[in-house]
Amino acid sequence: MPSKMHILIAPTAFKGSLSPMQAADAILAGLRASGLDATYDRLPLADGGDGTLESFLATGGRRVEAETVDALLRPLRAPFALFDDGTAVIEMALASGLALIAPRERDALRATSTGTGLLMQAALDVGARRIIVGLGGSATTDGGAGALAALGVRLLDGSGDEIGQGGGGLGDVVRIDASALDPRWCTTEVIYATDVENLALGEQGAARVFAPQKGASPEKVETLEANLSHYFAAIARQSGVDVRSIPGGGAAGAIAAGLLAFLGGRIASGVDLILEHHRIDDRLRHTQLVITGEGKLDSQTMGGKAPLGIARRAAAAGVRTVALVGAFEGDAQAAHEGGFWSVMPITPRPMRVEEAMVDAPRLLEDAALRLGYLLRL
Amino acid sequence: MPSKMHILIAPTAFKGSLSPMQAADAILAGLRASGLDATYDRLPLADGGDGTLESFLATGGRRVEAETVDALLRPLRAPFALFDDGTAVIEMALASGLALIAPRERDALRATSTGTGLLMQAALDVGARRIIVGLGGSATTDGGAGALAALGVRLLDGSGDEIGQGGGGLGDVVRIDASALDPRWCTTEVIYATDVENLALGEQGAARVFAPQKGASPEKVETLEANLSHYFAAIARQSGVDVRSIPGGGAAGAIAAGLLAFLGGRIASGVDLILEHHRIDDRLRHTQLVITGEGKLDSQTMGGKAPLGIARRAAAAGVRTVALVGAFEGDAQAAHEGGFWSVMPITPRPMRVEEAMVDAPRLLEDAALRLGYLLRL
Repeated sequence: MPSKMHILIAPTAFKGSLSPMQAADAILAGLRASGLDATYDRLPLADGGDGTLESFLATGGRRVEAETVDALLRPLRAPFALFDDGTAVIEMALASGLALIAPRERDALRATSTGTGLLMQAALDVGARRIIVGLGGSATTDGGAGALAALGVRLLDGSGDEIGQGGGGLGDVVRIDASALDPRWCTTEVIYATDVENLALGEQGAARVFAPQKGASPEKVETLEANLSHYFAAIARQSGVDVRSIPGGGAAGAIAAGLLAFLGGRIASGVDLILEHHRIDDRLRHTQLVITGEGKLDSQTMGGKAPLGIARRAAAAGVRTVALVGAFEGDAQAAHEGGFWSVMPITPRPMRVEEAMVDAPRLLEDAALRLGYLLRL
Repeated sequence: MPSKMHILIAPTAFKGSLSPMQAADAILAGLRASGLDATYDRLPLADGGDGTLESFLATGGRRVEAETVDALLRPLRAPFALFDDGTAVIEMALASGLALIAPRERDALRATSTGTGLLMQAALDVGARRIIVGLGGSATTDGGAGALAALGVRLLDGSGDEIGQGGGGLGDVVRIDASALDPRWCTTEVIYATDVENLALGEQGAARVFAPQKGASPEKVETLEANLSHYFAAIARQSGVDVRSIPGGGAAGAIAAGLLAFLGGRIASGVDLILEHHRIDDRLRHTQLVITGEGKLDSQTMGGKAPLGIARRAAAAGVRTVALVGAFEGDAQAAHEGGFWSVMPITPRPMRVEEAMVDAPRLLEDAALRLGYLLRL
């Protein structure tokens, strides 16, 4: 046991309030102010969605900018990460993200993953040999058709013309021509990072579960479901690859399923990829306590999101994890048994959600300060 | 250092939600469920107001019931506490309390402390030789005139008739005849327990500070102020005792000032009386941690209420105090420096005050459980 406690501060984003790194900074400031005799390390976490790039770049790597487009095809510069080992990390939300589209402009049928494909091509062009595509937060429900088109795959209708943009056009696809796909994809490992397990189609599929929050009416949801079904059947027929039963294939508008059919690769847990990237097991070896955090800890979190990911890795290494959370909806004992040694909500008093979100940086720092005092007991 | 940690659970009431003992029970249940290797002791706290009787009776003593009246003179049975050493404890709020009067029935001018006087007489009659009168939560602003009348002091107007009931009648007092006062009061020690320091009169006086929350309109507040001023001048003239500059004399409708003039005695801190009664210094000697609690910890608490009282006594004995609170309105560092080692709000998420208050027993137990886990780290 070293003389000082070493604490690994590994929060995810407080969605709408703090990025993972901002959360880590607030926690660090609070703990430091408590006078706790400890050393600290920050590891901002994400699950493939928002904050994934920041998380990968936390301990090094290069941020590269590229020309791309948003989900409505408007030009945009977006960053991706490049590491010395040839790994590139793309955060889909930074190009094809829902947050980039004003609510009144949202168009669930036309939103396209083209921009994500352009970033992937850019990563390939700067020499990446392993590309992690962080999925989540997308505006799209196009089965990755836009991304495939950006990579040179031609999706054609009965007249031999390119099909229309977005999930709304998928119903017209008759023939797919992947002959122009860059041959370097054959020797490039593609990993789709997500912590959702939804299939591409069906009740738990990309359209029915995620399209409503992207602005799709019930009728449009059914159109998207039917179009995706037609599209994946066409892919299965043409390429011989049936991606309809792959868990996670429904993530981010079913882009994972579409890309998998033509680029190969695998779907992996976003948080696990991040933890591996940061050599978590080495880090835990000299860590006595992990402090994680997230906006809301609820039954969804207990089902396998980023904070639980680090908590389980820590537990396996004999290290306990305390979670600082904006809202705790659950049972402290269940959380304890599920991997969070203890949970400390940051709300100091009854207040409105909006107030808590606006004030989150200060509330989180203050809670970390109070936790620091408790750790000094 | 004993092998197990000994924790003293000493909360005050969570006003409107939990009595001090209910709060102590919830905290105990949570800590026990955490599996913390500790022994526990409960000491419910109060400051002279609500919960004072329960607090004194926590480790023994007898609960005696007596016939009395409420602040509108309606008959009522109310308890007081009697201890083997001849000490009686009266909680004014249990007879002349605001909480006993429905909001629409409140009458700031007519509310009288008669019932408190009747309880004091009852305590005297069962042999009490030391009477602690817990002040606070009263419906009255009568300078203790009702209590004095119940004890035999005659407050007469210019015609030699008894003045009218409540603070509204005080303006008529011309002569005071204390000759019928029970002579046993000369040999009975009376202690007025309060943690407020307001004077009887003036800007920080009983009428201007407290009468509005008892239903007095601005006009009635000024009537009460003028009447109290007239009344205390008459007392000073007749008895030669000027109680107008005694800190705490303005507590509970200025009853302390009125009683002091005729019964003597002293004003003392409610929480200190309770802590002495429970031999706090002996208890702290084998205590490693104090856990206190209250509904709201704010600048008022930092000014000297019950939780701070125990925190300071604990600190003097080298024992740290953690506060579990319904609402924390302040700064964790200031609280730490002021005597609370750490503060743990019980709100698990943004929520309405009403929801937090209704759910307080569960929220407090859950917070204590989470604190217990943290103490096991």
